Amino acid sequence: MADNLTSRKQDYSQWYNDLVLKGGLAEHSDVRGCMVIKPYGFALWENMRDVLDKMFKETGHQNAYFPLFIPKSYLSKEASHVEGFAKECAVVTHYRLKNDPNGGGVIVDPEAKLEEELIVRPTSETIIWSTYKGWIQSYRDLPILVNQWANVVRWEMRTRLFLRTAEFLWQEGHTAHATKEEAIAETVQMLDVYATFAEEYMAMPVIKGVKTANERFAGAEDTYCIEALMQDGKALQAGTSHFLGQNFAKAFDVKFADKNNNIEYVWATSWGVSTRLIGALIMAHSDDEGLVMPPRIAPLQVVIVPIYNKDAEARQKIDDKAGQLVKELRAKGIRVKFDNDDTSRPGWKFAEYELRGVPVRIALGARDLENNVAEVARRDEKTKASTSLDGLTDYVSALLEEIQQNMYNKALAFRDASITKVDSWEEFVSTLDGKGGFVAAHWDGTAETEDKIKEMTKATIRCIPLNNEQEAGKCILTGNPSTQRVLFARAY
Amino acid sequence: MADNLTSRKQDYSQWYNDLVLKGGLAEHSDVRGCMVIKPYGFALWENMRDVLDKMFKETGHQNAYFPLFIPKSYLSKEASHVEGFAKECAVVTHYRLKNDPNGGGVIVDPEAKLEEELIVRPTSETIIWSTYKGWIQSYRDLPILVNQWANVVRWEMRTRLFLRTAEFLWQEGHTAHATKEEAIAETVQMLDVYATFAEEYMAMPVIKGVKTANERFAGAEDTYCIEALMQDGKALQAGTSHFLGQNFAKAFDVKFADKNNNIEYVWATSWGVSTRLIGALIMAHSDDEGLVMPPRIAPLQVVIVPIYNKDAEARQKIDDKAGQLVKELRAKGIRVKFDNDDTSRPGWKFAEYELRGVPVRIALGARDLENNVAEVARRDEKTKASTSLDGLTDYVSALLEEIQQNMYNKALAFRDASITKVDSWEEFVSTLDGKGGFVAAHWDGTAETEDKIKEMTKATIRCIPLNNEQEAGKCILTGNPSTQRVLFARAY
Repeated sequence: MADNLTSRKQDYSQWYNDLVLKGGLAEHSDVRGCMVIKPYGFALWENMRDVLDKMFKETGHQNAYFPLFIPKSYLSKEASHVEGFAKECAVVTHYRLKNDPNGGGVIVDPEAKLEEELIVRPTSETIIWSTYKGWIQSYRDLPILVNQWANVVRWEMRTRLFLRTAEFLWQEGHTAHATKEEAIAETVQMLDVYATFAEEYMAMPVIKGVKTANERFAGAEDTYCIEALMQDGKALQAGTSHFLGQNFAKAFDVKFADKNNNIEYVWATSWGVSTRLIGALIMAHSDDEGLVMPPRIAPLQVVIVPIYNKDAEARQKIDDKAGQLVKELRAKGIRVKFDNDDTSRPGWKFAEYELRGVPVRIALGARDLENNVAEVARRDEKTKASTSLDGLTDYVSALLEEIQQNMYNKALAFRDASITKVDSWEEFVSTLDGKGGFVAAHWDGTAETEDKIKEMTKATIRCIPLNNEQEAGKCILTGNPSTQRVLFARAY
Repeated sequence: MADNLTSRKQDYSQWYNDLVLKGGLAEHSDVRGCMVIKPYGFALWENMRDVLDKMFKETGHQNAYFPLFIPKSYLSKEASHVEGFAKECAVVTHYRLKNDPNGGGVIVDPEAKLEEELIVRPTSETIIWSTYKGWIQSYRDLPILVNQWANVVRWEMRTRLFLRTAEFLWQEGHTAHATKEEAIAETVQMLDVYATFAEEYMAMPVIKGVKTANERFAGAEDTYCIEALMQDGKALQAGTSHFLGQNFAKAFDVKFADKNNNIEYVWATSWGVSTRLIGALIMAHSDDEGLVMPPRIAPLQVVIVPIYNKDAEARQKIDDKAGQLVKELRAKGIRVKFDNDDTSRPGWKFAEYELRGVPVRIALGARDLENNVAEVARRDEKTKASTSLDGLTDYVSALLEEIQQNMYNKALAFRDASITKVDSWEEFVSTLDGKGGFVAAHWDGTAETEDKIKEMTKATIRCIPLNNEQEAGKCILTGNPSTQRVLFARAY
């Protein structure tokens, strides 16, 4: 299989597409910009979702579900919000089809026109805050800590599987608070949840920071983000958590009576991650042989491949041993498959599971059994070792954790080596064009300069890192004074 | 709380609405026909979904995700399918909004008109079979056993929370098989999964059967169903499993090479249950005091309500004991909450948890502790008993199972008493108008008679029960010969 894959060096972008398609994660659908998430890709998303969902519940959140459709006028109630989303909306205008009286097949029934058009949700702040108005009267009703798992639609013209699609799956948390401080604390807490998830489960180091005004969510006072680094040196925004101030409360007139019976507007946050994380996962870890899945969220953690010869008795012994291993590994909560499909050869299977990024492969042959060993291969390092069958399940269990840790360490080393401090425009440009990665540089704090730099280099300010060191310096473009470095990068 | 509820006798329909709204399950949204599923209602759906998902996976199915949108022309490819769904479609015609140059706010951008309109999926057979075309070449690619959890939209004009809404949540299984026999076996297997789920988890007895041609899914060869009985004597279709024959394979040209290299069309099934089940659950079990939740899927299984007096030391003892109980119950996997909120009185809490249908309530007061007892109340029978604190968690654990069984038995007794055999038109009408329920009657097997009966009485044939007894008789309307009784009822 692997020889059909494009290598990263040849064509990084094609390599990515090959992995998504041939790795069985997703494919393009007949509907422009919409993808089909295939069973293997969806199993990965389910594992990610289940971990995140648990983390959300442990921090006191509950799930709920709000309508797919948003009345057109709702979008407009928050001025910068509509500005941000109007250009990429799927608009429902009719509610019925009919047979063309002129024989042209099925057509939209012109008599079934909606009085007000409906937008397929690109995000749900507006419909949710119009609902919260009915839920909130007093401080006793606060906080509201709600999350929704949903599909959303943003009509992108240039799409890429997982990274940018017209429809994608995500979660969106929407919380309501009595005080500004509490809302900001919630925003930061959820950013931490995302960072923990990215690092501990996806084995992907991230930098926590705050977006500049230019890059802020449409309707937010502050957008916090986690930024990850891909192997081609480009950054990828992996999750955002927004402090929305009282913007949506004001747009939808959501007020509450505090303990002293003063009437105040409610404070809001929203936060989300999406199936885009799967794109990040692929580009953070995979190699020219295929996907590399971090064990903790891998759809399949261990595959056992039998090496049969023509001896039926030996075959039975292999099957028995494999069956026993499967049972023992499952008892440890490990996701394992015994692939005894006779229609493909072991070599083909090896390549296939490498392509799919299964962390550990166990090969079992007749001679192995005689020697009381199995061949255990790890996907991350592409090494294999003959390993005693005694205590094999403990060994595999520990190996999965070691792989998880190793993947994180490798990604962290790469990321850390890809942060470059520069103090001149020449260095800035040559770093971007050379090794890429994050460029830590001084910026004069104006949107104008930020725009110019973006125009000239395609690099954007990914974030102002949290707990950033204060340091006097001069803006790399204008030479104007600056108090801290920010992180620039070209990004997905 | 309960005195604000409408009773079933007063107004059954209003009673249902009261329970949904005041029980905190769902509410109407500002978007016509779309509901907001509130956290308590969504937690119930999550429990139902998790059980079903496990049952699907245990029968070999995997989840995947297909696009929300379906090109208009796809719907038309299967003739009866488009006939069934064209009249209730949400149609996307544009992909952008813009500012009205005449100052009329945000308007649909007429220049952003789609070449082909997109339908928001009412069901996904068409988009999925157009995808399967790419997945299936040979018998080795079969069977495909895929399920999707998704939102769907059917533009209903008269909506009711959970029972009939424009948007609802559901799962839809879509499988592809090499033989007719295998596809039929899958259809029946999934009907059994649904029946098991309804009976063992929802405590709701169902009748398994086959729909008449009139009531068949648009595009199916045969529709299998489970039918449940509500307390007002009306039937409710709780789940359907369709044998689709080769209809969609032919519509989307999906063929495979069998073992002998003959090229054949693929056989299909689809099967689904939706948030409608929540409506069924409410109407099967609840009473004039509120919801009654079957323990196995109840969002909250046990609530502990402290009865404080003014003694701080006694309060501490109650809190300690409650904390210990919570820990022990959680260790048994029981969903429990200790409601020590000081802002409401115990009586208010009792009514509130009754309204929400929490199966078991434990009240703990200072005197109870002195006597080493707690007051344990069960929601289904509205009885309570002073119970020893020794072994209380075992007692509660067994009680939950007893409640589950009792709810099923009660519903079964009611359902069985509501099946009436009739042999004349007069009896038929008087039964429908009187006790209601299922009416087992002879029918001549024609769609014409079925339509007439529906027109005259609003009763439909709910199903031809599986393993139906053969019995010669005469059609209640036409007197024409019949070989078996079918089940009629008025239905949701």
